[in-house]
Amino acid sequence: MKNVLVTLPVKETHQSRICEAAQGCNVLFVPGREVTEEQVSEANVIIGNVPAKMIRGSEHLELLQLESAGADAYLAPGLLSESTVLCNATGAYNRTVSEHAVALTLMLMKKLHLYRDVQKKSLWKDCGTVSSPVGSVVLVVGLGEIGLQYARIMKAMGAYIIGVKRRPGSCPDGIDELVQTDEVDSVLPRADVVFSILPSTKGTVHFYTSERFCLMKKSALFINCGRGNAVESDVLLKALQDGEISGAAVDVTEPEPLPADHPLWLQENIVITPHVAGGYHLPHTFECIVDIACENLAHWLKGEEYRNVVDFETGYKR
Amino acid sequence: MKNVLVTLPVKETHQSRICEAAQGCNVLFVPGREVTEEQVSEANVIIGNVPAKMIRGSEHLELLQLESAGADAYLAPGLLSESTVLCNATGAYNRTVSEHAVALTLMLMKKLHLYRDVQKKSLWKDCGTVSSPVGSVVLVVGLGEIGLQYARIMKAMGAYIIGVKRRPGSCPDGIDELVQTDEVDSVLPRADVVFSILPSTKGTVHFYTSERFCLMKKSALFINCGRGNAVESDVLLKALQDGEISGAAVDVTEPEPLPADHPLWLQENIVITPHVAGGYHLPHTFECIVDIACENLAHWLKGEEYRNVVDFETGYKR
Repeated sequence: MKNVLVTLPVKETHQSRICEAAQGCNVLFVPGREVTEEQVSEANVIIGNVPAKMIRGSEHLELLQLESAGADAYLAPGLLSESTVLCNATGAYNRTVSEHAVALTLMLMKKLHLYRDVQKKSLWKDCGTVSSPVGSVVLVVGLGEIGLQYARIMKAMGAYIIGVKRRPGSCPDGIDELVQTDEVDSVLPRADVVFSILPSTKGTVHFYTSERFCLMKKSALFINCGRGNAVESDVLLKALQDGEISGAAVDVTEPEPLPADHPLWLQENIVITPHVAGGYHLPHTFECIVDIACENLAHWLKGEEYRNVVDFETGYKR
Repeated sequence: MKNVLVTLPVKETHQSRICEAAQGCNVLFVPGREVTEEQVSEANVIIGNVPAKMIRGSEHLELLQLESAGADAYLAPGLLSESTVLCNATGAYNRTVSEHAVALTLMLMKKLHLYRDVQKKSLWKDCGTVSSPVGSVVLVVGLGEIGLQYARIMKAMGAYIIGVKRRPGSCPDGIDELVQTDEVDSVLPRADVVFSILPSTKGTVHFYTSERFCLMKKSALFINCGRGNAVESDVLLKALQDGEISGAAVDVTEPEPLPADHPLWLQENIVITPHVAGGYHLPHTFECIVDIACENLAHWLKGEEYRNVVDFETGYKR
């Protein structure tokens, strides 16, 4: 009998859905932190992000279904055997991350972070001019499903969207203009908002250099809900301090957690949230992950093609 | 020669547009705080919110074009002579107020006010579950142009919209369900978000009573960008303290400014902005007001019907 190991924080309804999808298998539900090496080594399918080092050499493992979109921890050569297929949870986080990013964008545009600060001092104080999505040029750097969803909402609010994408292709619905990543410098000077939703790959580490912040408008807002290593915290701090951009909001930092003594915390014109755009903060996300897991369990049993297979070369969904 | 008195904070481009619209008239531009009684008494048209007491008995005044949407200060019987037409700036504030309200709604849903507070303590701290516009029931109380615009954006983000309107009528585009104001108690228990954009009229003072907050879900969010007197500050405070609702965001309070020693300032689950959703915080607003003023100047000269005439009975645009 095949073994399916599930480390997701499931409730009863999820358990019965997963058992139904894995009919005829031995399904073991174990909280992530309690998983043993033996359980991992005997599993034919693992659903959940078990520690990468526990997986090395798991010869029975046919499918590793992650609960995250990022797969960087599992891409090291030789970690997974050649017969293991790695699938991620791309799609599950679209709603929660795109909405968090829109909320951060509007918070900056309407200066709600500054109003929160003066509220704490019981001050009825006008903080001046605000901006609007209407007519704003919004650069979406990383045009995966989250970027597209963010773009769709911002466009509904009247923004003009420039999508930035690794590979050439046709302009997706809801994107007004498309450029390739290596042409980004040509559009940075036009952006009122730069929304970064880049994953962590070889090509994206420290993507936002001092030079790139200098190319942006002094009134530009920078939002990062992708990976923290897209920008060095000191580079971002300096761009804000020097007025190269007017504000930032980041859900991800380098490193994480951001050390308590890092001056970025107290910089007035940045909003920092502690990598919470995703995770299971929105109940809907978890439902989507269970959906993907059940779908891929069924594909595994029937020998069909999986959804969300990760490409080891790029770290993206294939 | 007819006299047109303009107290708006105009720039040169606005001045020339207004002079062109008021061709053949004597146009006087005076900053609001410098206006004299003589200038007011000689004016045939006034554009701008001059102090109401200065206007009493202005017999030459044919048109008073306000720069605000609210006209309550000018409705007192006998203040304006019978030959004066009162027009407001309804429409000019749609964009700025609706966007501010959406920003406040998302801020509460995503707990960005709490994240701002922990940021100030340099804390990388998870604040728990968030909510989403998708599938949320949003009650829009006051279905004027701002309410409709807010509804349109929230619906684009996936919300279900219940509009609440004084008078019966057909359900406007973008509204999923319509009820009359006197039926509001029947829909309050269903709302995840209650957005109030009521003007100040006889029927709206202290509209949100303790009883009405008790009818709402304990998870409900209350947003007020209409007038502060729709809810007593102590009633709102108690609803938040007692957990009758889970959060609030208000751009208007009773009284204004909210006194520095009022406990509402320090209540954690409320966001307070100091009546800044409107005003001239968004440059676009002022352009709209100049548009309306120029249009009505032209109508005045040609003896045509005005745009945005205020009904003295209701205080609304007719």
